[in-house]
Amino acid sequence: MSDLAVSGRVSAAVATVIDALGAQWPGRVSLAEAVRLHHANTMTWHRPQMPDAVFFAETTAEVQGAVRLCAQHCAPVIAFGTGTSLEGQINAPFGGLCIDLSRMNAIVAVNEEDLTCTVQAGVTRKQLNDHLRDKGLFFPIDPGADASLGGMAATRASGTNAVRYGTMRENVIALQAVMSDGRVIRTAHRARKSSAGYDLTRLLVGSEGTLGIITEVTLRLHGIPETMAAAVCPFETLDGACKTAIAAIQMGLPIARIELLDELQIRACNTYSKLSLAETPTLFVEFHGTSASVDEQVAMFKAITGEYGGGDFQWSTRPEERSKLWQARHDAAFSCLTLRPGAQVAPTDVCVPISRLAECVAETKQDLADSGLFGPIVGHVGDGNFHVAVLFDRDNKDDVARVKGFTERLARRAIAMDGTCTGEHGVGQGKIPYLVEEFGPALDYMRLIKRSIDPHNIMNPGKIFTLDPGPDETLQ
Amino acid sequence: MSDLAVSGRVSAAVATVIDALGAQWPGRVSLAEAVRLHHANTMTWHRPQMPDAVFFAETTAEVQGAVRLCAQHCAPVIAFGTGTSLEGQINAPFGGLCIDLSRMNAIVAVNEEDLTCTVQAGVTRKQLNDHLRDKGLFFPIDPGADASLGGMAATRASGTNAVRYGTMRENVIALQAVMSDGRVIRTAHRARKSSAGYDLTRLLVGSEGTLGIITEVTLRLHGIPETMAAAVCPFETLDGACKTAIAAIQMGLPIARIELLDELQIRACNTYSKLSLAETPTLFVEFHGTSASVDEQVAMFKAITGEYGGGDFQWSTRPEERSKLWQARHDAAFSCLTLRPGAQVAPTDVCVPISRLAECVAETKQDLADSGLFGPIVGHVGDGNFHVAVLFDRDNKDDVARVKGFTERLARRAIAMDGTCTGEHGVGQGKIPYLVEEFGPALDYMRLIKRSIDPHNIMNPGKIFTLDPGPDETLQ
Repeated sequence: MSDLAVSGRVSAAVATVIDALGAQWPGRVSLAEAVRLHHANTMTWHRPQMPDAVFFAETTAEVQGAVRLCAQHCAPVIAFGTGTSLEGQINAPFGGLCIDLSRMNAIVAVNEEDLTCTVQAGVTRKQLNDHLRDKGLFFPIDPGADASLGGMAATRASGTNAVRYGTMRENVIALQAVMSDGRVIRTAHRARKSSAGYDLTRLLVGSEGTLGIITEVTLRLHGIPETMAAAVCPFETLDGACKTAIAAIQMGLPIARIELLDELQIRACNTYSKLSLAETPTLFVEFHGTSASVDEQVAMFKAITGEYGGGDFQWSTRPEERSKLWQARHDAAFSCLTLRPGAQVAPTDVCVPISRLAECVAETKQDLADSGLFGPIVGHVGDGNFHVAVLFDRDNKDDVARVKGFTERLARRAIAMDGTCTGEHGVGQGKIPYLVEEFGPALDYMRLIKRSIDPHNIMNPGKIFTLDPGPDETLQ
Repeated sequence: MSDLAVSGRVSAAVATVIDALGAQWPGRVSLAEAVRLHHANTMTWHRPQMPDAVFFAETTAEVQGAVRLCAQHCAPVIAFGTGTSLEGQINAPFGGLCIDLSRMNAIVAVNEEDLTCTVQAGVTRKQLNDHLRDKGLFFPIDPGADASLGGMAATRASGTNAVRYGTMRENVIALQAVMSDGRVIRTAHRARKSSAGYDLTRLLVGSEGTLGIITEVTLRLHGIPETMAAAVCPFETLDGACKTAIAAIQMGLPIARIELLDELQIRACNTYSKLSLAETPTLFVEFHGTSASVDEQVAMFKAITGEYGGGDFQWSTRPEERSKLWQARHDAAFSCLTLRPGAQVAPTDVCVPISRLAECVAETKQDLADSGLFGPIVGHVGDGNFHVAVLFDRDNKDDVARVKGFTERLARRAIAMDGTCTGEHGVGQGKIPYLVEEFGPALDYMRLIKRSIDPHNIMNPGKIFTLDPGPDETLQ
């Protein structure tokens, strides 16, 4: 028996896996607490749950080797990209092996003529876009964090550009994945469309590592638009800003980004990102196209804002101004801490049909006030998707209870409005309780699929749904 | 024992189902041979295989009742919409019950603000678009035939507009389905995006009735563009036409339709649809947008055609001219019979990355010639998808053998070019042999899913993959 197993810190099964991995790939398995903690969830208010060890894989064959060992010994296995997920997706509630894919960061192929590329799972979106820039191409999905493309596929990520370009659901063409039995599959070829067989690509996109570990991703690319114009438009009311977004979508304006920031978030951005915007509900907007088409879009959008109380409408095609604006938007999550230094942030995420958006945001604002809570609202409002960054004191039990109650009501409010408890953050550990409400009996078929593809529940156990009784998943 | 079972024509299990259905819903079950034959595959060269009986369902609860009976007695159950699938999807190689959904033709809801609608599975695309016209909305997916939306979802249909608007994969938001155990599920709510759980919607889209019977479909709608312009452009060579399509896609032109017809197909259209086009490879194109944007697109496209030997470029925004053009395109399948009256048509369907399109079409043309075969080529070339309508004598064994050899080589050629054996017709019975080549070990996970969701293989058995030894699926 190995020393590890004798120590009693990890199960005999996991110890065997770790010993075998270390023997085969010396120096690539870490048991250090700092490393293990870095690979547990640290971005949000979920309690970190460390894996027993971290394996730094460099090839698909190595991932396969590690998964085979885990399969042989029924050890949990959790994929790690950049650790930027928000619902505890990389936590290890049952311990086990974390496979870090960040060294698998090769861009395998760019097929310019087909507007596709294939990358290893550890390539990040910024790395890819840096690589593509000279070719006049870009990959639009943009969740804020510089996440890995494997992780973005696994969590069905989206972000600010989704209103025009879709989410990972629409932009992943094919995946290579190591399944729970250690076999490597490729879900599809590179044709733009196919009617051949079940859509395993879309099944793995959003499966959060519970069915297989994504090792390569084939993506759709887009040409960098001739002209990109960003605009900022303040509104008298949140309702006016929401209704502007709704009207723009309904009239089919091919808007590339339309982001809502409420007055609190604008205050935070002003402080953190050194902007000087009026502290009122505001839309950040972007238009892509030919020069003539962008001019036309801006004019049409301006006309809409006028109808809903939109104020002084500023726009620019200068790259440095666009960058500053979107950097501020992406830093929203950090900036909100300036509103209450030392506070903990609970990031929420719901999505409703756009016709219910204004109502859902208004009820949520009221609920915040009624609950004595405080937090800015930001949203990808063109998709009906918004977040509240609730700021609270994690050492105050009452505060924690109020936040829990608020996030539960928010999820249920969205579901009741024919929406979803998560538009882009995924289920992880945090949204498990709401899936029954959202899916009813359909959830049983998800479980059937999970059991058939991963019969021993070794792939990221304790995420999306609970199959076995496990540790208490509650927060804090 | 029922008379039916005593007759020996159907199994005791199926006889029990038929008797029970007839007792519960008198007059709604037909055993007539003409009705059963109408519900077997008749559109293509696959041999029709009749179901034992046809049940005309009028509600989801009735579909549920019928499926429960079939589940109880392990009887095969096949969904029928309009019978326009092309690969034997509605054939009943093991007999069983066909559920005809054409009476479930209610438009349940149109949510204009959200650009969504929910329809029963039997609603056809033309019926839906007639209903939507006054609201300024349309549903773009257009496989040619006036197919039912349930059937289009089940086969992952696409067609001429897919290059701009996507396929059923991108345009189905949610489905209601009766699963093999008789339970009714709804796969998603109506939000534009969601990261909650496995994507059951996309799993059922393209599953061809092998996992469940789709009874309601929630779809994305689009605003009718302010301006639509159709254009016809003849080319000196097929290669020039293909390369024009490739260049238009690569430069990001938001072209709504780009269809290739070779010289044979143009000759057929001239005869059948009374056109007077030059008999040379030709692109039929359509542009959607504001008036200014369409003008700009036309100018850009015209510039591209000039580079690749495009000739006299005619375009029109007049609805009657547009309709005549697209009607001719949709009648291509019928028109080609004018080239060889009395012949049988074998419709093929492959899709490759667009960079391989010109090469794939050229090799296929050569293969036709080398095989002594004859058939026009039409294609949704913006997607890399094309069809050959091979015309042959079904009573001539040599002819049949040559067609089989040709279609096999075509499927394998597409797969070898990183494409798919079917871009839009689906697998049905005809493409089963190629999935092993296209998917390798990934096919095993499709089978695992099938077995977990439909453990007794009652849902459209003998389609997509063979799970059990069954009757010979070979053609003719």
